[in-house]
Amino acid sequence: MTRRLAEMTTVEAAAAVVDSPVVLLPAGAFEQHGPGLPLATDLVRAEAVTDRVVARLDGRAVIGPALPVGVSPHHLAFAGTVSLSTATFAAVVREYVDGLYRHGWRKILVVTGHGGNDATLTAVAQDLLVTRPDLQFAWSPLTPLAADVVASAEPPEISGHSGEAETAQMLALAPELVHTDRMAAGTTRLSELDALGELARRRGGPKLTLSYERLSGNGVLGDPRRADPEHGEAIVEAIVTRITDFVRAWLKA
Amino acid sequence: MTRRLAEMTTVEAAAAVVDSPVVLLPAGAFEQHGPGLPLATDLVRAEAVTDRVVARLDGRAVIGPALPVGVSPHHLAFAGTVSLSTATFAAVVREYVDGLYRHGWRKILVVTGHGGNDATLTAVAQDLLVTRPDLQFAWSPLTPLAADVVASAEPPEISGHSGEAETAQMLALAPELVHTDRMAAGTTRLSELDALGELARRRGGPKLTLSYERLSGNGVLGDPRRADPEHGEAIVEAIVTRITDFVRAWLKA
Amino acid sequence: MTRRLAEMTTVEAAAAVVDSPVVLLPAGAFEQHGPGLPLATDLVRAEAVTDRVVARLDGRAVIGPALPVGVSPHHLAFAGTVSLSTATFAAVVREYVDGLYRHGWRKILVVTGHGGNDATLTAVAQDLLVTRPDLQFAWSPLTPLAADVVASAEPPEISGHSGEAETAQMLALAPELVHTDRMAAGTTRLSELDALGELARRRGGPKLTLSYERLSGNGVLGDPRRADPEHGEAIVEAIVTRITDFVRAWLKA
Amino acid sequence: MTRRLAEMTTVEAAAAVVDSPVVLLPAGAFEQHGPGLPLATDLVRAEAVTDRVVARLDGRAVIGPALPVGVSPHHLAFAGTVSLSTATFAAVVREYVDGLYRHGWRKILVVTGHGGNDATLTAVAQDLLVTRPDLQFAWSPLTPLAADVVASAEPPEISGHSGEAETAQMLALAPELVHTDRMAAGTTRLSELDALGELARRRGGPKLTLSYERLSGNGVLGDPRRADPEHGEAIVEAIVTRITDFVRAWLKA
Amino acid sequence: MTRRLAEMTTVEAAAAVVDSPVVLLPAGAFEQHGPGLPLATDLVRAEAVTDRVVARLDGRAVIGPALPVGVSPHHLAFAGTVSLSTATFAAVVREYVDGLYRHGWRKILVVTGHGGNDATLTAVAQDLLVTRPDLQFAWSPLTPLAADVVASAEPPEISGHSGEAETAQMLALAPELVHTDRMAAGTTRLSELDALGELARRRGGPKLTLSYERLSGNGVLGDPRRADPEHGEAIVEAIVTRITDFVRAWLKA
Amino acid sequence: MTRRLAEMTTVEAAAAVVDSPVVLLPAGAFEQHGPGLPLATDLVRAEAVTDRVVARLDGRAVIGPALPVGVSPHHLAFAGTVSLSTATFAAVVREYVDGLYRHGWRKILVVTGHGGNDATLTAVAQDLLVTRPDLQFAWSPLTPLAADVVASAEPPEISGHSGEAETAQMLALAPELVHTDRMAAGTTRLSELDALGELARRRGGPKLTLSYERLSGNGVLGDPRRADPEHGEAIVEAIVTRITDFVRAWLKA
Repeated sequence: MTRRLAEMTTVEAAAAVVDSPVVLLPAGAFEQHGPGLPLATDLVRAEAVTDRVVARLDGRAVIGPALPVGVSPHHLAFAGTVSLSTATFAAVVREYVDGLYRHGWRKILVVTGHGGNDATLTAVAQDLLVTRPDLQFAWSPLTPLAADVVASAEPPEISGHSGEAETAQMLALAPELVHTDRMAAGTTRLSELDALGELARRRGGPKLTLSYERLSGNGVLGDPRRADPEHGEAIVEAIVTRITDFVRAWLKA
Repeated sequence: MTRRLAEMTTVEAAAAVVDSPVVLLPAGAFEQHGPGLPLATDLVRAEAVTDRVVARLDGRAVIGPALPVGVSPHHLAFAGTVSLSTATFAAVVREYVDGLYRHGWRKILVVTGHGGNDATLTAVAQDLLVTRPDLQFAWSPLTPLAADVVASAEPPEISGHSGEAETAQMLALAPELVHTDRMAAGTTRLSELDALGELARRRGGPKLTLSYERLSGNGVLGDPRRADPEHGEAIVEAIVTRITDFVRAWLKA
Repeated sequence: MTRRLAEMTTVEAAAAVVDSPVVLLPAGAFEQHGPGLPLATDLVRAEAVTDRVVARLDGRAVIGPALPVGVSPHHLAFAGTVSLSTATFAAVVREYVDGLYRHGWRKILVVTGHGGNDATLTAVAQDLLVTRPDLQFAWSPLTPLAADVVASAEPPEISGHSGEAETAQMLALAPELVHTDRMAAGTTRLSELDALGELARRRGGPKLTLSYERLSGNGVLGDPRRADPEHGEAIVEAIVTRITDFVRAWLKA
Repeated sequence: MTRRLAEMTTVEAAAAVVDSPVVLLPAGAFEQHGPGLPLATDLVRAEAVTDRVVARLDGRAVIGPALPVGVSPHHLAFAGTVSLSTATFAAVVREYVDGLYRHGWRKILVVTGHGGNDATLTAVAQDLLVTRPDLQFAWSPLTPLAADVVASAEPPEISGHSGEAETAQMLALAPELVHTDRMAAGTTRLSELDALGELARRRGGPKLTLSYERLSGNGVLGDPRRADPEHGEAIVEAIVTRITDFVRAWLKA
Repeated sequence: MTRRLAEMTTVEAAAAVVDSPVVLLPAGAFEQHGPGLPLATDLVRAEAVTDRVVARLDGRAVIGPALPVGVSPHHLAFAGTVSLSTATFAAVVREYVDGLYRHGWRKILVVTGHGGNDATLTAVAQDLLVTRPDLQFAWSPLTPLAADVVASAEPPEISGHSGEAETAQMLALAPELVHTDRMAAGTTRLSELDALGELARRRGGPKLTLSYERLSGNGVLGDPRRADPEHGEAIVEAIVTRITDFVRAWLKA
Repeated sequence: MTRRLAEMTTVEAAAAVVDSPVVLLPAGAFEQHGPGLPLATDLVRAEAVTDRVVARLDGRAVIGPALPVGVSPHHLAFAGTVSLSTATFAAVVREYVDGLYRHGWRKILVVTGHGGNDATLTAVAQDLLVTRPDLQFAWSPLTPLAADVVASAEPPEISGHSGEAETAQMLALAPELVHTDRMAAGTTRLSELDALGELARRRGGPKLTLSYERLSGNGVLGDPRRADPEHGEAIVEAIVTRITDFVRAWLKA
């Protein structure tokens, strides 16, 4: 039986409120991912992870409506990117939560394939402490949960957006949407950046947010040509395991 | 080649700005559709129509990001319904438009499978006259465009949400999501309504908006058991033809 | 005795909460109506209709504060037009409702002389289902309620804003504000429109909102010189009858 | 010829932009004025003053749309009062200004019959310095401009809302709306107030805003029975003279 | 023991809710004060006054968080000025109040050194009547409370911002931040103003808000060179006495 | 000479725009810090760090207005805590930036002593990419910049808010505000938490935000009794060095 509310009738949804106390909301971005990956890359990965997690939870969780567009102002210089302001993204999350809360759900987890959503999701979580004190609201990134697996492939000095790990996940999950023939390395070394770009990537100091066209000519950080589907599968699997473990513990808490 | 921006890379998106001056945005709702149809019914239909329309336009149009959740406060009493406030739905539409506008698009058409979105889409269109005077923003409903085909099946006195015409479309487009075995008639005659419900359905006078639980015990208006996939296909085809004709004329205007 | 709250003292208002369960709010626009009609045309008509309706209701309804400015961005190119954004118009309606609700009223009807307000009034009605579930909020247009009477005069192919029917109503209601000597035909045939204008007026397809200067050089749709006060009186009378019938039924519901 | 934009056509409005560089906007309140005066008292006075001022300015000023509802939260305990929040009242003023500005006007004066609007009008004036630096935005109260005339009647220790001076103005301007037979003294001495009320009325110290039901059982401050139309006419005349003088100087500035 | 919440631990704050029913919030501005006074002048004075007031109240009042930036759009042409919009300043005040209210405080007094905050503080007070009906919210200016002392020094025809009285207060309170060597007279006579400036300063008529660069080349109204610390001390003392008297009465009300 | 804009006159501020291209804004929180530290702990540390950083930059940076209240909903159950919503905190930051930008500054760094501000500062940074594309906006936390120094003291399994490192900094910077006599250990081991609390502190998985009363009875994480001023000085020094290095590089970028 489907675990997606979208595919359920209201009759099944009413049962799910009782049987499935956790709702997962997949969130993506609608943004450039270089010459090889589609604009929906982050949603594709979030939905795939969400599907797998829920499949392992013995009917104790369901999937709610998706957030296909996220907070991507740093990619707007690249054609096709659509972004919500942080205020609007927050309002959408809050109103999804409001509807689910009204039906009785109290544990909601946003699974975001896009790191640009992290700050706003945290801000929403903070505000909900005041406005919905009996709600438990969590969110999860994807790739950072598999940092160890990502590191095992020894990525270059700079690797991230549309790079080795993200491309690998897409090769594992949706190879039909990946254009391996067009792929090209993006920025892979700090020395390729100008002084401002270098500051924006420096760890352990103040945070400087820059538009991506300042960091990479083709919008890529890393070298997607080095990506491989088996490594991608290992990354996805690590993410799925860690989120599933979390939800299992949450269901008992 | 895909006509969905979501599946394109930024390279293809850049080409589409030049070659495909029209962007269609499918909008749905995440709301109860009685015991037989899924919560995503309106998005399923909007996406199917959008796909067909774009397929007939010789590459002159593309599909942008979807709006999976719409304005559905009247269905919130039924489990699973998620709704955006009119202000938030408007903000999302406006910001989708902002992104597409930035890349160069000037003709944007929202195709909504959900009538509850109509008012907010009109309000957005009005505000855009001031804020984006050189943009052409249009929106289209689905079923009302095929009013003649719908009428040919001689529906009962009351028929609408999750009724004959909507169920027929789903039987034609996504039969795997339809539970014909569970279907039951909803409200089909004015005499089944209380005085307030009757006022809300009366034509030619003031408009009174009521929550759906006041209009129908199972959330259905009409009798979905009378729906038939061939009639559904005829409805969809009429809608697709009329939207396609509009876009063809628009491309020349 | 006056039925206008504005002219009552708080003592009479307190009695009205008990005796007059329905409040009517006249809404207009402050917008161009061609060379012959005043900017306040829509409020003048809404107030006249509201007065007549309330006069027939045996003290069971009162008139609340007016909305003299509406949503008119499509007329801003013509001198004198003042418009509220849809968000601000909605806020004003909501706060009028808040005040009346606080005093005890639960049935509120906005009578709008301006079609540009319809979408926002519907959006307000939707949002109120969530925020004021025990309120009954309705709104009514004017001329569309008398579509049969309007059609009886066989208007030209295009007729609407400041045209035959609207001018006729003003001749019946406020002839001292009508400049018949200056009137001139506006756009009366589809063939006078450019391709985009034609699309915006086409029925049965997607909705495209355009600024009025694209539709008519003098801001008029139709030929106001054909208007006649007796026909105007018949239109007004039909509108008043239909709204009155609605309110009578509502009072019993 | 009318000096009210509402009664002009767009043709006359276009001429007025050139000939009449100042627009006056009458603002009122929709609030209790005790047992003797109507809810619209403040708008009635503002409109009367505005009419007289404009009549003396030789066609150099026009009257724009009215603000029939103001900021009256302190009167909401009394039946019939309708109030806008300060944010919504500000938005309405700002958008009236936006429309007039677009047509070319640069000198806008709000004439408010209600002191509860003063703070928000000042806030709007402050924000406009940033958003419309080439606009000149002014606002004027009514009765405070005639403080000397008011004092000449030797009002009691407490006199203000619906008291001697306000009632006198209404007797001069709209006697048909005044119920002299029902009038009764409100609070007239500090000793009638409780300690908090006394603090709220104390001059020369911190400002404490209280709801009116704490200050007066019948909503009146002062004794309206002492009001007299000739004194009211003198107050109105003083106000009109001072606003007219201001506008004459402004037209030359 | 400190009376500043900022310097208390949560343990002391919990005791203060019981023992100290009044919270004072010092509000300033971050704005030009001519060549002689620092940008923080208004906060410096507000904090000094607040400290003195609270010191005289026998532990019955505490000092809450400061508002270091106020509403100063009229000074933005002068370097260093930072201003909040009226909406944001109002939101900050409201949310400070929300926090204090949650802990149990019901009497909150904002002491503002900057007159540009007055209107927004009044607007907040009005809105709080509806949203927090059991809260008592007051605010106080500084210099206007000592109008008699200020007048005793016979200031020039125009004197105000950064002039005699304000400079004197700073000489008394924070002489180390005053640059007497650089001081120069600003505008001191109406005849130095242009026609518009003269209108903006005229008493007893409509209020016209202008940017300060139109009123004074160096941002000063009055002649700060005439300021003297003893007079400043007398002004401060008068302010402190009047606020203290108010709070003492308030504590008993 | 002072490096604080607050203490400068507008004349010095005008010079600073030219000579000091970087503005630092210290941000704190107004929140419980257990029985030993004051509510202003985060601002005290942010201001001390900011002062030291600017002192090392040879006049190339100045300090702008402070943000004394931050985003602290998780501490509202503890007396004295005042919090801004994320939307209001963002608005304040944005409007500080607007003012500084208007005067010519293009490099702005918020130094936040409170981790609860991080998400909103990131969200502001994202939105500014669209609204102020030529601005460089950065923000920095404090303690995380000295993670190595903190770790050298071998803190317990759980240590953070008001714990060893934060208390140590306060002992170094403002010992007069620290109540060592009252200090008590807070939560120091995962096993002291309930299942939900444990999930909220777990690393490497989804993020769950909880109110602090669920994590610690006295609001403390860690054991402040173990704090020592010399270690605190080392932490502060590491933070100052890293921010200074960043700004030096930024000035050249």
